[in-house]
Amino acid sequence: MRPSGRNLSEMRAVSIETGITKHAEGSCMIRIGDTHVLCTATIEDRVPPFIKGSGLGWVTAEYGMLPRSTTSRMRREATAGKQGGRTVEIQRLIGRSLRAGVDRVALGERQITVDCDVIQADGGTRCAAITGGWVALKLAVQKLIKTGAVTSDPLTDPVAAVSCGLYAGQAVLDLDYPEDSEAGVDGNFIMTQSGKLIEVQMSAEGATFNRDQMNQLMDLAEKGVADLAAAQLAAVNA
Amino acid sequence: MRPSGRNLSEMRAVSIETGITKHAEGSCMIRIGDTHVLCTATIEDRVPPFIKGSGLGWVTAEYGMLPRSTTSRMRREATAGKQGGRTVEIQRLIGRSLRAGVDRVALGERQITVDCDVIQADGGTRCAAITGGWVALKLAVQKLIKTGAVTSDPLTDPVAAVSCGLYAGQAVLDLDYPEDSEAGVDGNFIMTQSGKLIEVQMSAEGATFNRDQMNQLMDLAEKGVADLAAAQLAAVNA
Amino acid sequence: MRPSGRNLSEMRAVSIETGITKHAEGSCMIRIGDTHVLCTATIEDRVPPFIKGSGLGWVTAEYGMLPRSTTSRMRREATAGKQGGRTVEIQRLIGRSLRAGVDRVALGERQITVDCDVIQADGGTRCAAITGGWVALKLAVQKLIKTGAVTSDPLTDPVAAVSCGLYAGQAVLDLDYPEDSEAGVDGNFIMTQSGKLIEVQMSAEGATFNRDQMNQLMDLAEKGVADLAAAQLAAVNA
Amino acid sequence: MRPSGRNLSEMRAVSIETGITKHAEGSCMIRIGDTHVLCTATIEDRVPPFIKGSGLGWVTAEYGMLPRSTTSRMRREATAGKQGGRTVEIQRLIGRSLRAGVDRVALGERQITVDCDVIQADGGTRCAAITGGWVALKLAVQKLIKTGAVTSDPLTDPVAAVSCGLYAGQAVLDLDYPEDSEAGVDGNFIMTQSGKLIEVQMSAEGATFNRDQMNQLMDLAEKGVADLAAAQLAAVNA
Amino acid sequence: MRPSGRNLSEMRAVSIETGITKHAEGSCMIRIGDTHVLCTATIEDRVPPFIKGSGLGWVTAEYGMLPRSTTSRMRREATAGKQGGRTVEIQRLIGRSLRAGVDRVALGERQITVDCDVIQADGGTRCAAITGGWVALKLAVQKLIKTGAVTSDPLTDPVAAVSCGLYAGQAVLDLDYPEDSEAGVDGNFIMTQSGKLIEVQMSAEGATFNRDQMNQLMDLAEKGVADLAAAQLAAVNA
Amino acid sequence: MRPSGRNLSEMRAVSIETGITKHAEGSCMIRIGDTHVLCTATIEDRVPPFIKGSGLGWVTAEYGMLPRSTTSRMRREATAGKQGGRTVEIQRLIGRSLRAGVDRVALGERQITVDCDVIQADGGTRCAAITGGWVALKLAVQKLIKTGAVTSDPLTDPVAAVSCGLYAGQAVLDLDYPEDSEAGVDGNFIMTQSGKLIEVQMSAEGATFNRDQMNQLMDLAEKGVADLAAAQLAAVNA
Repeated sequence: MRPSGRNLSEMRAVSIETGITKHAEGSCMIRIGDTHVLCTATIEDRVPPFIKGSGLGWVTAEYGMLPRSTTSRMRREATAGKQGGRTVEIQRLIGRSLRAGVDRVALGERQITVDCDVIQADGGTRCAAITGGWVALKLAVQKLIKTGAVTSDPLTDPVAAVSCGLYAGQAVLDLDYPEDSEAGVDGNFIMTQSGKLIEVQMSAEGATFNRDQMNQLMDLAEKGVADLAAAQLAAVNA
Repeated sequence: MRPSGRNLSEMRAVSIETGITKHAEGSCMIRIGDTHVLCTATIEDRVPPFIKGSGLGWVTAEYGMLPRSTTSRMRREATAGKQGGRTVEIQRLIGRSLRAGVDRVALGERQITVDCDVIQADGGTRCAAITGGWVALKLAVQKLIKTGAVTSDPLTDPVAAVSCGLYAGQAVLDLDYPEDSEAGVDGNFIMTQSGKLIEVQMSAEGATFNRDQMNQLMDLAEKGVADLAAAQLAAVNA
Repeated sequence: MRPSGRNLSEMRAVSIETGITKHAEGSCMIRIGDTHVLCTATIEDRVPPFIKGSGLGWVTAEYGMLPRSTTSRMRREATAGKQGGRTVEIQRLIGRSLRAGVDRVALGERQITVDCDVIQADGGTRCAAITGGWVALKLAVQKLIKTGAVTSDPLTDPVAAVSCGLYAGQAVLDLDYPEDSEAGVDGNFIMTQSGKLIEVQMSAEGATFNRDQMNQLMDLAEKGVADLAAAQLAAVNA
Repeated sequence: MRPSGRNLSEMRAVSIETGITKHAEGSCMIRIGDTHVLCTATIEDRVPPFIKGSGLGWVTAEYGMLPRSTTSRMRREATAGKQGGRTVEIQRLIGRSLRAGVDRVALGERQITVDCDVIQADGGTRCAAITGGWVALKLAVQKLIKTGAVTSDPLTDPVAAVSCGLYAGQAVLDLDYPEDSEAGVDGNFIMTQSGKLIEVQMSAEGATFNRDQMNQLMDLAEKGVADLAAAQLAAVNA
Repeated sequence: MRPSGRNLSEMRAVSIETGITKHAEGSCMIRIGDTHVLCTATIEDRVPPFIKGSGLGWVTAEYGMLPRSTTSRMRREATAGKQGGRTVEIQRLIGRSLRAGVDRVALGERQITVDCDVIQADGGTRCAAITGGWVALKLAVQKLIKTGAVTSDPLTDPVAAVSCGLYAGQAVLDLDYPEDSEAGVDGNFIMTQSGKLIEVQMSAEGATFNRDQMNQLMDLAEKGVADLAAAQLAAVNA
Repeated sequence: MRPSGRNLSEMRAVSIETGITKHAEGSCMIRIGDTHVLCTATIEDRVPPFIKGSGLGWVTAEYGMLPRSTTSRMRREATAGKQGGRTVEIQRLIGRSLRAGVDRVALGERQITVDCDVIQADGGTRCAAITGGWVALKLAVQKLIKTGAVTSDPLTDPVAAVSCGLYAGQAVLDLDYPEDSEAGVDGNFIMTQSGKLIEVQMSAEGATFNRDQMNQLMDLAEKGVADLAAAQLAAVNA
């Protein structure tokens, strides 16, 4: 029943390739089916003004899509002169989600910027960005631990994200683009491997949902995040 | 235990005053405690290019805060040269939420723009904007029905929104600013009077939550939306 | 002969309601007929660089119109990405006018920003903004005097503004929108209660004027400002 | 008593050199003392949307300052990414003033854009721009008359502008930069050669004025405009 | 003598991997040593206004760098609100160079946009972009030929680019970043496989050069372009 | 054969008038035929952050065109909200070229900004800007030497620029606009009087060139630069 032939609770194939760029302190290419996102983490000594002197660390994120990551070419945001509303909304979500999984005391007063650039899009880019972004972040933190700059690991519980939605009346896991563009209800679920919830966003466009359906989507999401967290740990421990 | 002395499941005082500006097709000032938002609805014959000729209507929203609606003065976005990320995120949410409660076939090929401008902020401005925005929208649609331009009411089930969160470890309804700035978890719940869910956004900053807590917040939200919907209907039928 | 039935030298009804927003140091809603402007004053300790260390105070103003304050909806300037020429011109006028009525030595090295936001427009918004802006400014200064931060009142002579013009060949006081859009010549007159002139702007579009007409408009303006100043004092002393 | 040694009612030396650039339909370099402004007029067949089909013409203006036209270098507005408030205010004034002296029916449905670029500034640039702008405009219109595109002269009464102010307590004509930066009150007076008033802007900064002083400034302005109009006619008839 | 140990006339390793993204009509990842650029070509039916109806085709290019493609993180241009001067200069060069190698009559009235996004930078990104851009362009054109939309190949002579410079007093081929940042003179040479010159840019910073040196750099460039063209043909014929 | 009737190796008439604006430390109007560029040099004590404390000086340039310097009116870049790609490319070239001819140690830690504003364009504006810019720069430096702020002349070898191209199959010197718009190949050659090369940019649009043609253009350029350098020295020594 799904265009891809997947089962209702089946994720797309997941791969996470680390060490993609030599300059970044942490980097990976995450591929969730045909959605490919390059994630890099940059460590900087400065922090935003509002936490200067607090001893706390900060994690922030930026998101972009290459012009031809999509079916038809999108206008380059640098040419348009600003980031669009969707971009801003997504990068705020990525930053919040990653931050919620960080022990900011343990990180110490430094900032890590996670850049997520979509190379190829096929639905679920923001979830892939969060999941891959955590890997890049973890790799950067491992360097800080190795040099002794950080002594206690601030990232002990992986953060991952997956989208679920109601497609053709059924709750399905990990929407791809053909499903996403048809689904009347979809949601993004950001959790830790240990099952803690960080962010839940369910949204209806041209439809509504009820609490039963919400619970079905939550159940699927828990399954998906478990799979993703395993892939994350495999990648960072490789 | 709440700074305001309210019970855990107690809303702030709600008032909705209609007919605030003479030019708009629909308008109201919604006051949820000390949060005051002026909402206006503007009917236009044009629709966005992607639905031209479809016979379907469109509802969109814009959001702004007056510079001194807040404790300390905010920079005017027109001076800054762009809308900030938070503004963009909120106005997209308002538009999506109102649209989900509209029968776009019944509305016919026209656009209604709902402007929500915060006159005074004390927490929960986006929820007040959605709730008041629905009233302005309904009043505008009533004019279309009166003139016969629309023959079947496209707005039969009020859409309202309320925020809930975990404050000092407890689930509380309708966060005001002192609570909102302390809460590690908060959520915005957009529903119809009949209990249909339109959008759920739960977000942790410096904390996490579990499904039990999520359900408690949902229960509170259902109570809050019922109160708000009653106030909406009273206002539009006055 | 006037669309509103007013006499040639008759102002519209004037009301000034103070204490409109709880956050601002001074605020009022001024209503001149159907023109409604919300004015707030914000005290800040910083001053512009060019007077730093001078001991002198500064007063500046910003002006905006809500999108549906007008007959048809105006584009939000924050969305357009910049303030339009008319906005810039008006807010510079408000700032200059208010500043000319302030003893900047007595104010001391601090800045007060007056925000004037048009809620509903029906002609004469810049004059209403100056008149209401002075009230907000005075209320903020009264707080500084009460706390002893300012010891000598820097605002002893109210500043008010009114527009006059040639409508259907006659000099008329306080143009409303239907008159303003027809008048070939109009002017804005900013004065103090004691009759000192601060700014006079007379402008012809599709017509010219002579010195006799200029003097008639000045005479009307003096009458109008006297009425406005009385309303200002009543409001701040209430 | 004046820094330049001029009498109270003495203009600076005025020269208007026409035919400065080969591409423009009309052009001149106007020099009022050390204030030098290059003015060009461009004829275009299109008109702004709001008069399309009306048969009426339009005149508009733009104003700029070269970065080193001033004592210390100003930032180039193209680099800053926008025109400043002062620029916008001035170019709107130039456009309005020139338009008020044009018979828009006789001009016919076309637009003339007058560009005024300050090569060297020493006070009074906006007045020089209006005065020189009229010359460029007139030269362009003469071409239209010569080709028969326009049959009745739409520019029969020269428009000129001069600034006057209160300097060291005295009314003086044609403020130069040292006077302008000291004057507590100054004004710009735009008139036609025949004595019709088009725009009067009097403004106090750190002072006020009364009607007697206003009349003295008006008297001086009439004298100044007579001198300028003679120079304009000499230039266009050369 | 070269930091990399290469001979004076030795290129870095070159690889061109095609079919990188599924959406683009043509795409490749070109790797010149540690410089990696993703190039995509997008076919559109519209052309710029100035050639509409001419029957001629158009090729244009855009260039970007991912924020962490460089040693330290660069600010994202979409966040900065505009493309920097270097970006603009480079993308104009890429467009001009590719266009010079296209038979625009044979291409027919359509536009191909080549996007070049730097994934990892180590000197010579603009040359890699042109060389890889030609491959993406060729692949897109092959599709047009396959469908019969284009009947005569508009791309018969590969266009490639290489940088050469004076490093430590010697002429060297294909500067990498350590060389580029030390070289007092460097140049970009864009040629076709058959030896036709398209663009030559030689530039001194803190040094000068003479015609002998210019000729040495030209000789090296001819060798480099021959190598690159062979790699291009191998890639498109794979 | 040339539209102007000039010989293949004949420059247009060159004149350089110094002391054009009273405020700038150095200024000239350079006229190469009908191309007229006003160049000013501004000395500032600050330097860019990346050389602060190095003891080295800096020279930078900005370039602009007056709206009606061209055949049809160009949009003012300050109105458009940004400098176009061509402008950015040109001003970077001017800055680089002038810098290459400066002994930055001798100049000392200060910045000189050269503004080049095109008053009338007829081809070759960037070359005229470099040539005239050097004169303005030299005049400013002469002031520094006169006051003793600089003790050793940092500008001993004039920098000048000329364009050459292939017009109707022939190599010609100093392209004017009619030639420039027809030439399939053109180049800009920046050299010192003593024959050192600073920048060479040759570019084909709709054509290609070979090394023989390149050498012919170089020969012509050497002749042109010799003429220009003589005019530069005459101007600065006048």
